[in-house]
Amino acid sequence: MADRIYLDWNATTPLRPQARAAMIAAMELVGNPSSVHAEGRKARRLTEDAREVIARGLGTVARRVVFTSGGTEANVLALSPGLRAPAGTVERLLVSAVEHASVLAGGRFAPSAVQTIPVTPSGVVDLGRLEALLAGGPPALVAVMAANNETGVLQPVSKVAEMVHQAGSLLHVDAIQAFGKIPLDIKQMGADLVTISAHKIGGPKGVGALVLGAGVEEPIPVLRGGGQERGRRAGTENVAGIAGFGAAAGAALAAIDVDLVRLTALRDRLEAGLRQTADATVFSSDAARLPNTTLFTAPGLKAETAVIGFDLEGIAVSSGSACSSGKVQPSHVLEAMGVGSAAAQGAVRLSLGWSTTEADVDRCLQAWRKLSLTLLKGGDETALERF
Amino acid sequence: MADRIYLDWNATTPLRPQARAAMIAAMELVGNPSSVHAEGRKARRLTEDAREVIARGLGTVARRVVFTSGGTEANVLALSPGLRAPAGTVERLLVSAVEHASVLAGGRFAPSAVQTIPVTPSGVVDLGRLEALLAGGPPALVAVMAANNETGVLQPVSKVAEMVHQAGSLLHVDAIQAFGKIPLDIKQMGADLVTISAHKIGGPKGVGALVLGAGVEEPIPVLRGGGQERGRRAGTENVAGIAGFGAAAGAALAAIDVDLVRLTALRDRLEAGLRQTADATVFSSDAARLPNTTLFTAPGLKAETAVIGFDLEGIAVSSGSACSSGKVQPSHVLEAMGVGSAAAQGAVRLSLGWSTTEADVDRCLQAWRKLSLTLLKGGDETALERF
Repeated sequence: MADRIYLDWNATTPLRPQARAAMIAAMELVGNPSSVHAEGRKARRLTEDAREVIARGLGTVARRVVFTSGGTEANVLALSPGLRAPAGTVERLLVSAVEHASVLAGGRFAPSAVQTIPVTPSGVVDLGRLEALLAGGPPALVAVMAANNETGVLQPVSKVAEMVHQAGSLLHVDAIQAFGKIPLDIKQMGADLVTISAHKIGGPKGVGALVLGAGVEEPIPVLRGGGQERGRRAGTENVAGIAGFGAAAGAALAAIDVDLVRLTALRDRLEAGLRQTADATVFSSDAARLPNTTLFTAPGLKAETAVIGFDLEGIAVSSGSACSSGKVQPSHVLEAMGVGSAAAQGAVRLSLGWSTTEADVDRCLQAWRKLSLTLLKGGDETALERF
Repeated sequence: MADRIYLDWNATTPLRPQARAAMIAAMELVGNPSSVHAEGRKARRLTEDAREVIARGLGTVARRVVFTSGGTEANVLALSPGLRAPAGTVERLLVSAVEHASVLAGGRFAPSAVQTIPVTPSGVVDLGRLEALLAGGPPALVAVMAANNETGVLQPVSKVAEMVHQAGSLLHVDAIQAFGKIPLDIKQMGADLVTISAHKIGGPKGVGALVLGAGVEEPIPVLRGGGQERGRRAGTENVAGIAGFGAAAGAALAAIDVDLVRLTALRDRLEAGLRQTADATVFSSDAARLPNTTLFTAPGLKAETAVIGFDLEGIAVSSGSACSSGKVQPSHVLEAMGVGSAAAQGAVRLSLGWSTTEADVDRCLQAWRKLSLTLLKGGDETALERF
């Protein structure tokens, strides 16, 4: 697939060469990190080195990093009822309406204990509504993501943190899409719990971490029956995956400033090109966004067909979240923003990454100009069969 | 560590070359298996091929295999209260006293709903006691492992299944140590739920599976918020790990008959050598055991010191389960067998695998003869410091 262009980086990313090398090296180590012999100690050193890199990347210390099998597990671990907040025990969960499905599922809270924080038409958490929700009930765990996976919208996390802490509650930040793309610091964010994931930053699929803020109580483990991860998460560690995560994080963080500028320019070039199509809309373009994410539509576009059309043109794009196993459902993110269902079902996501080039963007725009002739304005839907 | 000898295969195993190759190939694939574009479909094909191999290895079909982040997660997923058993809803969990810590932890059952099935002095589940427990209460989920990780004892799983089903209850079999070492078939075992793990058979650490018997109800998911694994386990799949698991399973299953004979001979050679030390005991030697596992002691031996001694001689061995993060505690398995605490704290586990040679066994015995001079009979405990 050398000729293909991959513009679906928010679903998952190509493995960085540094992560690949780290994983291959880790695969040579036979030991179990819990074993006391030399082989075990070597394996443990790899996981601890990765923990250190990741902790530094969030401005914290290694012992607050809990490795998990990915963002979903980290979110389930974080969303733990019964945590002690300054104002008392957490009895409810407030989730922004645009959270990832694994947060919206509510972790281990009863469905009746979960409330939704609305967002503005731009997809930004409505701070007024958050304030009212906080005032109207017992101490809460509040979940507001750092950046949205579909629109790229950056949430006002430190303002949210201030309000949450003022109310004596706790803040969970799903930083899966933001980590490694924009500079983050757990203290500056004011987060009590932060979720990150390897495969969004050039690490392997199947590894993530929950990072604990200073002073937050330990979440109740989901996986029990072993002393791994300081008793916070039982089970033999995914050593190769963790090593790859560490290496990817190191590489992403080292390049973060350069990539931020480069990707912003590429995204702006892409969006300028898309806007040449009559009535094309980029969602949330009036909000602060990630440098790499463009969610757009045009009248008459059907995302499902568009994704197939781009694919046949050699370009991998997405109709939104990839987490529902091929099931195409209207985006809950756009619904929360008040976007009508026709426009929502026509939303196509283009997300870029460290190996994306100007030529990739131009070929994508070229494909779009060709595809838009058949895909738009209720055009011949069976046209795709001719590709 | 080319000169080192690894005899701790029940903790984790070297990666098989086939698994290594499959993982490296998988690492080249950028796609998320939930994405509909070509990259996504390729990644999905890898996970589905692995699922097929693993299903065949247990005599079942691919759709009954649920990939997890390892045996611990699979056990937590399996131990799900509220399952419908033929005699009614499962209200309690019966676990054999020698189960792995992740099963003893009880999954999602309340501690008060968990009862223990005693074992005989040989470490075999006491069927009379199981019968009495089944008769004395509501429908149960019964957890009896296929083979013990410390002693290697094979449990009479099909007899247990008969009794469990006679009582209208359900059977979970933790087959982590048995899968790939002895032939297994989910129907012959009579298991309703089976746990297996990659890193015990030459696959990577951090991937496992729960395999569902025909007709068993779906366990309530632990990780929610995504349609992966037919809605049974949310979260982006560990594609490289799953590919490695499939390749390792394929290789292990293809060689199972040959390895069974070869490892039995090596183990017998090892145990004959150990028995030349006065009063050395091999635990459970009167029971049916795995071909690769030897748990032994000798009067005066301290396992903690012995493991370090062997390590300094270049040989990786274990003092029992490696799952407690370096914490040395008396083995709950030996305690359940009625072994006194002095003997239990002196138990050293030697476990072999596909790359173990006769020369490895002989070098281990040579090291043991040297070490036993200082380690046994209350000998100079500080002697190790001289190494």
